[in-house]
Amino acid sequence: MFKRKSFQNLIFATMINPFTDEYFMKKALQEAEMAYEKGEIPVGAIIVVADKVIARSHNLTELLNDVTAHAEMQSITAAANFLGGKYLKDCTLYVTLEPCQMCAGALYWSQISKIVFGARDEQRGFITMGTKLHPKTTVVSGVMANEAADLMKRFFLERRK
Amino acid sequence: MFKRKSFQNLIFATMINPFTDEYFMKKALQEAEMAYEKGEIPVGAIIVVADKVIARSHNLTELLNDVTAHAEMQSITAAANFLGGKYLKDCTLYVTLEPCQMCAGALYWSQISKIVFGARDEQRGFITMGTKLHPKTTVVSGVMANEAADLMKRFFLERRK
Repeated sequence: MFKRKSFQNLIFATMINPFTDEYFMKKALQEAEMAYEKGEIPVGAIIVVADKVIARSHNLTELLNDVTAHAEMQSITAAANFLGGKYLKDCTLYVTLEPCQMCAGALYWSQISKIVFGARDEQRGFITMGTKLHPKTTVVSGVMANEAADLMKRFFLERRK
Repeated sequence: MFKRKSFQNLIFATMINPFTDEYFMKKALQEAEMAYEKGEIPVGAIIVVADKVIARSHNLTELLNDVTAHAEMQSITAAANFLGGKYLKDCTLYVTLEPCQMCAGALYWSQISKIVFGARDEQRGFITMGTKLHPKTTVVSGVMANEAADLMKRFFLERRK
């Protein structure tokens, strides 16, 4: 009986809140796949406030010939535009890859509440590079990391061919 | 006679190359003054290649409601647009204030050849924050630093009133 009840509770909890980190990361992964199809390094990002997606974007550095056109940068600009203010309080960024120095620096200025990222970028990610986030920002890492990393690996393997 | 000759040499040298770091920093300061007049934190930037200004901009974070609209970021995008490529090789950025983490991170990706900045930003500049620049990038600091710092001080003093 106990087992059955906890299973029921689990079902109930899922019914109450389908908006898990995985739920939103899937949307960021869809963006990463769009980048992949365009021949861009496949990174996708979305910004969420109160379970609502207010910005979605993917890396466009090649198409725009612009090193600043990372997925996160575009989402920060789009979310601020949507909110009508430059601070992203109560917002969560979901991004398939660990942000770089530039993006972490932009997130610092935005005072975003939460960052959820998928795969680590051991070489150029903000953790290795030592970039400081805003004290108000919490970080969750490793959400659907394998899916994000696989997409990256597939991209660079195809590129080498 | 010696003195006269070295004075002549100095004149001659100035005639050959009027394009000193101060010459270009004055243009960046003009941009900073434009930001000041709009009520923006007064930071200006230009990008130069072969003594030609290919981008000029000033901070527009308030007007655009966008933390990413720093002077440097806009100049990086504009210069890449002008050059038709995202790498800013053989380019020099002149900026009135030491770049922040975000801007230094963008400059890292751009592989810019040289950064010349005016005043230090002891609190949030890339030096204090430990942001890494590209190994190809050289840095010159302190060019017209007093002028840039005075403009900043004047701005924050007026704001407090």
